[in-house]
Amino acid sequence: MKRRQFLQQSSLAALAASIFAPAQLLASGTETKNGEWDGTTARNIIFLVSDGMSIGTLSMTNILLHRKEGRSSAWMELYEQGKAKRGLMDTASANNLVTDSAAGSSAWGGGVRVPNGMLNVNADGSFNTPILQKFKAAGKATGCVTTVPITHATPAGFCVNNASRNAQPGIAEQYLQLRFDVMMGGGTEFFSAEKRPDKQDLFAKYAQAGFSVARTKQEMLDGAAGQPLMAVFHEDAIPYSIDHIQDTEFQATIPTLAEMTKNAIDRLNKNKKGFVLQVEGGKVDWGAHSNDLGGLVYDQVAFDEAIRVAVDFAEKDKNTLIIITTDHGNANPGIFGGSKDNKKFDSIFGFKHTNDWILKGINKDFTASQVRERVEAALGFTISPDEARQLLGHYARPDGEGLYNKAKLPFKELGEMLGNYTTVRWASMDHSGDHVELTMLGPGSELLKPFMKNTELHNLMLEAAGVKKA
Amino acid sequence: MKRRQFLQQSSLAALAASIFAPAQLLASGTETKNGEWDGTTARNIIFLVSDGMSIGTLSMTNILLHRKEGRSSAWMELYEQGKAKRGLMDTASANNLVTDSAAGSSAWGGGVRVPNGMLNVNADGSFNTPILQKFKAAGKATGCVTTVPITHATPAGFCVNNASRNAQPGIAEQYLQLRFDVMMGGGTEFFSAEKRPDKQDLFAKYAQAGFSVARTKQEMLDGAAGQPLMAVFHEDAIPYSIDHIQDTEFQATIPTLAEMTKNAIDRLNKNKKGFVLQVEGGKVDWGAHSNDLGGLVYDQVAFDEAIRVAVDFAEKDKNTLIIITTDHGNANPGIFGGSKDNKKFDSIFGFKHTNDWILKGINKDFTASQVRERVEAALGFTISPDEARQLLGHYARPDGEGLYNKAKLPFKELGEMLGNYTTVRWASMDHSGDHVELTMLGPGSELLKPFMKNTELHNLMLEAAGVKKA
Ligand SMILES: [Zn+2]
Ligand SMILES: [Zn+2]
Repeated sequence: MKRRQFLQQSSLAALAASIFAPAQLLASGTETKNGEWDGTTARNIIFLVSDGMSIGTLSMTNILLHRKEGRSSAWMELYEQGKAKRGLMDTASANNLVTDSAAGSSAWGGGVRVPNGMLNVNADGSFNTPILQKFKAAGKATGCVTTVPITHATPAGFCVNNASRNAQPGIAEQYLQLRFDVMMGGGTEFFSAEKRPDKQDLFAKYAQAGFSVARTKQEMLDGAAGQPLMAVFHEDAIPYSIDHIQDTEFQATIPTLAEMTKNAIDRLNKNKKGFVLQVEGGKVDWGAHSNDLGGLVYDQVAFDEAIRVAVDFAEKDKNTLIIITTDHGNANPGIFGGSKDNKKFDSIFGFKHTNDWILKGINKDFTASQVRERVEAALGFTISPDEARQLLGHYARPDGEGLYNKAKLPFKELGEMLGNYTTVRWASMDHSGDHVELTMLGPGSELLKPFMKNTELHNLMLEAAGVKKA
Repeated sequence: MKRRQFLQQSSLAALAASIFAPAQLLASGTETKNGEWDGTTARNIIFLVSDGMSIGTLSMTNILLHRKEGRSSAWMELYEQGKAKRGLMDTASANNLVTDSAAGSSAWGGGVRVPNGMLNVNADGSFNTPILQKFKAAGKATGCVTTVPITHATPAGFCVNNASRNAQPGIAEQYLQLRFDVMMGGGTEFFSAEKRPDKQDLFAKYAQAGFSVARTKQEMLDGAAGQPLMAVFHEDAIPYSIDHIQDTEFQATIPTLAEMTKNAIDRLNKNKKGFVLQVEGGKVDWGAHSNDLGGLVYDQVAFDEAIRVAVDFAEKDKNTLIIITTDHGNANPGIFGGSKDNKKFDSIFGFKHTNDWILKGINKDFTASQVRERVEAALGFTISPDEARQLLGHYARPDGEGLYNKAKLPFKELGEMLGNYTTVRWASMDHSGDHVELTMLGPGSELLKPFMKNTELHNLMLEAAGVKKA
């Protein structure tokens, strides 16, 4: 698509936003006469966030890839090859040592710490302008891709002001008004007439407003390049990577995070003034919340593949700032000592399904043998009859823990039990206040300090792109 | 002390070692005519290791110091002020994803991964030369200070070859032969005639061999500068920092890690060719092994004060490479979400004693009220009568966990219980396989790569000091 065509097809709202943008929001970096970016600023920013990634998650995934495939993770490879700089980041929110993802994304997105649960709204009700609105006003193409609902806290923190992260049906409407260029993820229930509390058909409204609306991978690939894209592939979150791989229907209809990232970059990169994209591995957090090892590490692998897509693009492009981080730790898992047998950890090689898949497929009428068979089908080894009976006990009287565990399934018990088989153990089912890993490469990465507050990334991104703070 | 005097008083053995050192072990950096170091290499190396420090321990300590004292930890301050570089380090041993401290220190000390439990001895029984022997042969003054027995795995890994870290009585004899310049820590039982299995009085033998032998802080301060120093302050490990502060006898007789570090630097720095010193915060690991929050974080604070001493010296000296790291994670603790009350974490401000102090002072004849009183005396808040009874149950029938828990006290239960009061939780009572923090500043720090194997630090130190690998 030609730039002219792109601009012609941009909505009036978007044009108005850029026409009326305050002067100091305009990007200072520009094309030179021969069409090259002038190189003084980052033309593009790709901000990759593995949600709720403790250092143990990063480490276990790298160790797993070494042992299983004889290679480093893409993230660690950046370090090994000396391509990236690293820092530690303090993740606290306005009111808590332990942030939630709404306040976490808002810290980056609005540059101000807000109370947990809020999206760029301060305790006094005042708003902080979300960073994708600033970049859009400066002429950048903008977007978010995620494996959880596109209306979830982490993308929303770059996009909207909302006093509650739970207002996902409302956030789906805000996105319609804001007209970002590419939005992809899960969460059909916040767009469909059948599931929305107000029975509005938002998918139809997006189409009427000139969006490409995609519900499948093919529709994502086919979506007209000249229109903004709203791609929503699944109710709630997209299936965990390891479950996704085992399901031919999922495979046919739902793209991986890396595929979404590739498609989003291709679309956004057509904008002459460059783009800003957030990429979220959102279910790493959910895997940690449910102490679900297969869900956790293989979604971290899927995130790592999205890193590779972004870095491959950036290395060719040479004008792209890549930021890779997480919003907070979660569960602080680790490979723990006391076993002489590294093969216990290697049992992860054979995992075919998540604990989520195991537990959601069991009901109280199962026998202990059936439970053991299901565990074996998922993990390649099985648990003892006593352990199976212990799990079954929770189905008779639902009492499980875990933030994304509405059915009160025994995620905690299974996670703990499997520690004896995998040597991986968990400290909690909740976020941690640990300082977290922060990685940058490309133009602007010289602004990285080895220890930063989450909020500092907001101005860092604006400065890197030559877009002054409003 | 004059250099001449130092040399005169050095033992024949030490002289022999330096006279017969292979040429390639000689330090290339030298004094210029006016007595200054020529600046091409690191004259000195101070290697600081907080043993068993998960990223959560580093984070919690920094957060604690911010909230309690309005300042960063010395370690994080190095990052904030842009003074240090950081990397991640892979900590595995030859035979395990999760190293012990013997193999961990041997990786740095000998440059080769050895099986857990071994000190610079390979699986085939062959030896790797320990780094302090190499540096001593190159003319450097050498030493170790620690809060655990000086014969323990982490100092020993820089000093000796031994097929078993448990051979501490033998390691105490090896040190006598090897004549490092400054050795300080706990472990009187490995030196005293009463406690040694062979009834040798090693303290007397050290004195006969020309060592200053110190058993108290005053003796450390008074120890003749011209002699090598063996300072052993306490049976087993030195008391946890927080217990140390509450005990006037400990205060009078046992130096802090920072005080030991200062004294060691003063002594070693008199050597014209510079020095190499290992400083270990050894009980950070023990605090993690017993899920003992007060022990853990206040010993990390004590370690942080030793960092400050080392950095202050290095900033004046300008020829000193500082390396700060840990050998492995342990227990992966964290501040966890789910509480709206940051004050729970702030309860650590009021801690006066460790869980170690609490549990070792209880016996099975205690009432629940007495248990509650002891907890309150130690922590400033108390537990419920039910919780006190639960703890007491373990005294009737000892069954506790924890590697440094010979008495089988209920460290695990107390650690878990207190999580509800402090929001700090633990994943295990053992080491983890996490990649860990690695920090460097000063000459040679340019050799840091953002991701390194533990073994790579061996040659990095030799190269930084201009001492070629043998
Ligand atoms: Zn979460
Ligand atoms: Zn240990």
